Amino acid sequence: MANDKPRRPRAEPPKGFRDYFGAEVTERKAMLDAIAGVYHRYGFDPLETSAVETVEALGKFLPDVDRPNEGVFAWQEDEADWLALRYDLTAPLARVAAQYRNDLPSPYRRYAMGPVWRNEKPGPGRFRQFYQCDADTVGSGSVAADAEICAMLADALEVVGIPRGDYVVKVNNRKVLNGVMEVAGLAGDDKEAERGIVLRAIDKIDRLGPDGVRALLGEGRKDESGDFTKGAGLNDAQAQVVLDFVHATAADNEGTILKLMALVSGSEIGQQGVHELQEIASLLAAQGYGPDRIVIDPGVVRGLGYYTGPVYEAELTFQITDEKGRPRNFGSVAGGGRYDGLVKRFTGQDVPATGVSIGVDRLLAALQAKGRSRADTAGPVVVTVMDRDRMADYMAMVGDLRQAGIRAEVYLGNPKNFGNQLKYADKRQSPIAIIQGGNEAAEGKVILKDLILGAKIAESATLEEWKDRPAQVEVPRADLVAAVRKMLGQ
Amino acid sequence: MANDKPRRPRAEPPKGFRDYFGAEVTERKAMLDAIAGVYHRYGFDPLETSAVETVEALGKFLPDVDRPNEGVFAWQEDEADWLALRYDLTAPLARVAAQYRNDLPSPYRRYAMGPVWRNEKPGPGRFRQFYQCDADTVGSGSVAADAEICAMLADALEVVGIPRGDYVVKVNNRKVLNGVMEVAGLAGDDKEAERGIVLRAIDKIDRLGPDGVRALLGEGRKDESGDFTKGAGLNDAQAQVVLDFVHATAADNEGTILKLMALVSGSEIGQQGVHELQEIASLLAAQGYGPDRIVIDPGVVRGLGYYTGPVYEAELTFQITDEKGRPRNFGSVAGGGRYDGLVKRFTGQDVPATGVSIGVDRLLAALQAKGRSRADTAGPVVVTVMDRDRMADYMAMVGDLRQAGIRAEVYLGNPKNFGNQLKYADKRQSPIAIIQGGNEAAEGKVILKDLILGAKIAESATLEEWKDRPAQVEVPRADLVAAVRKMLGQ
Repeated sequence: MANDKPRRPRAEPPKGFRDYFGAEVTERKAMLDAIAGVYHRYGFDPLETSAVETVEALGKFLPDVDRPNEGVFAWQEDEADWLALRYDLTAPLARVAAQYRNDLPSPYRRYAMGPVWRNEKPGPGRFRQFYQCDADTVGSGSVAADAEICAMLADALEVVGIPRGDYVVKVNNRKVLNGVMEVAGLAGDDKEAERGIVLRAIDKIDRLGPDGVRALLGEGRKDESGDFTKGAGLNDAQAQVVLDFVHATAADNEGTILKLMALVSGSEIGQQGVHELQEIASLLAAQGYGPDRIVIDPGVVRGLGYYTGPVYEAELTFQITDEKGRPRNFGSVAGGGRYDGLVKRFTGQDVPATGVSIGVDRLLAALQAKGRSRADTAGPVVVTVMDRDRMADYMAMVGDLRQAGIRAEVYLGNPKNFGNQLKYADKRQSPIAIIQGGNEAAEGKVILKDLILGAKIAESATLEEWKDRPAQVEVPRADLVAAVRKMLGQ
Repeated sequence: MANDKPRRPRAEPPKGFRDYFGAEVTERKAMLDAIAGVYHRYGFDPLETSAVETVEALGKFLPDVDRPNEGVFAWQEDEADWLALRYDLTAPLARVAAQYRNDLPSPYRRYAMGPVWRNEKPGPGRFRQFYQCDADTVGSGSVAADAEICAMLADALEVVGIPRGDYVVKVNNRKVLNGVMEVAGLAGDDKEAERGIVLRAIDKIDRLGPDGVRALLGEGRKDESGDFTKGAGLNDAQAQVVLDFVHATAADNEGTILKLMALVSGSEIGQQGVHELQEIASLLAAQGYGPDRIVIDPGVVRGLGYYTGPVYEAELTFQITDEKGRPRNFGSVAGGGRYDGLVKRFTGQDVPATGVSIGVDRLLAALQAKGRSRADTAGPVVVTVMDRDRMADYMAMVGDLRQAGIRAEVYLGNPKNFGNQLKYADKRQSPIAIIQGGNEAAEGKVILKDLILGAKIAESATLEEWKDRPAQVEVPRADLVAAVRKMLGQ
């Protein structure tokens, strides 16, 4: 509004952010609604915290040892607190659980859905704002809470359209991992770096295979590009303990548990961990969640440093074609575990907690890859404008249609060029265009143009099959709603 | 996790931010879903932009002349752009409309819902993050677009539970206001400050009455606290033009239009504005939206400086009791208007646009004040744990209930003290507690305790009326689901 001409602002979002249009919004919403329905049935209550927290409450850094350089979006208030956008939904939950510890039911089951922000370098398909969809139980040390989350995760995947057989929930236990570390001689504070390397090596078993992992457990590994990754420096006997652990998966959960028990027989914490896995498997079996849905899998590590007990991960088992045309497993869409230390940061008291986070965008991509997305994306019936002076008549038509629950709109652009109106209807994926010129108005009639049928006729080589199906009908104005319903097949 | 003891972080959100629990979340969601249904039926498509925009794209300041000190939350990227949290949903729409102008249908009807952020001093009931729920039509200069938004606003209010008669959509036109300014001798760039004071004075007619407004139009006004607000310095004749305008409301829309037409007969822009109002009223009447729902009201100003044509506001007409026990009108819950300049910032081309923003939190407060909030807030059936070793049995019970679509959970706290379990069920607003001790298990039975009935019995002075209604029943385990359904009245 200033009279001088400033440089025009660029019409684009910040790097790493994007916009979501139409079906992209409604498909995600339909998925979140379905998952919320499952969480609700399991007794979880919704919690919505604000996007902004104090940096102090969040903790200054992401607790992800794999990505220590990831940051948050933060700024300082005028001579006051540093504030930041939340980077996940767990840190705000820890703050809430501490703040309201005298008011909330205990245990407290809560779910939360919404965007989180990461101040990291954006890349293809990697955005700085994305959705998470979490469920956590705070205040229960029982592994029944972990088992419940695993069952709920399986239910959630099925309710959004991933059929049984196309997913598996894998369960492991950090205590077993700790036991394996003890047996391999990697206990103690001075071995933290080595343990980190071992955990990351295990996490890469699917990609690198046993030889690659063995190299990382030993001196290190040179990858195809020539880059060298330093190893944990384990000797052969130590490395073998870890590899035996990774390969402890047996034909069934009982078999896996027996192998694990043998492996960690020298470690008290390890034995406790195996017993917990056993209990989780038996609790799930009692509810009918067999190994077709939930399996014990020693290969699951989960990156976050704060896990202290059971960890779990949902993996989609079907293959998709990657950008180079090669088939590959879709992989993980959700993960979580037990973290008993997060609330303690605030209160000094141990508060056991366990929970899962569903990667909303990855799960949505999976559904789209399988053609199972189910949002209603039908365009509106478009009432065209033949005579600008009779806008009231056209608006009365859309009014009648909307009243009847039919999605409808009147063309609001410049009506001079009728072709533009039909192009608009096409862009809107409109099923029907309504037309009423002066002649029709005088006769009290309207024309309905079946745009879907019209498009099919236009595509079809022979008109034979269409000749008995008129793409256009004329009906009395009073029959507009009924005729539209009929054409829509309602 | 460090060994030294740092100061513990405070467990609280930043000042001016808050958390929403349980029904607060689901009630808002139910309201937004209902409004989205109306927007969808009107042919509006959802758009979700990210919370973060460049400061450049947002514009550095809120365009609200009434609150020039309001700011945004902003920070600078490492040696790069300044980024900020969006302060409304209109600025991001303008950016999107410019960025995708070749791809979007034109006119483009879009709706958006989500939080926005204001870096302003928080106060009681005044938060720095709150929801907006907008619908806008970009690319149509026709007042049919404005009329449509007014009709849609009325429908949206009814669908969330505000019955006809409890609300009114008031419509005015900035062009009429401009015409009044011309007639009152306030045209021209050098009179911008005076025009601002006049607009703000008109906006306060409900609160200050004609005398207060007259004072503000003249030399100024001292309020009860003794604070002096400088006036626009109009002479009596000028002030009378403005006051006649404010009081131009007649018994019906036709009467109001006649009065307005007489008032602005000396102004071309003013006459154009009155004709637009006339057309809006006639388009709405043709769809059956009479003055019981939508009225022309010269008192509507709307604060935002960027409006260029019709402006509208939804007001709830019922009274509530304020914190001091006095009855007062609930007031405005939504507003909007035509703004033809926003997209031009980016492209240099005029793009007409009109839209509305619903104040989600105020509307929710209104529904709660009227007891019309409708979210499902029923607590879960709680399966208690009498025997820790039979957790698998209890989990199988909740599994059966959930499978049947019944919200249910097993008690996951320490089961030692049974009283705590019933207290927990009470806090969860649980309708039924399920109990199975060793004896019941041996007999293959379960006990259902009707907690709602139990609470009523506890409240009741005489037990007479309850004696035939047992608050507790014992049924075979196999009948659990059916017995729960019966007790829930399903």
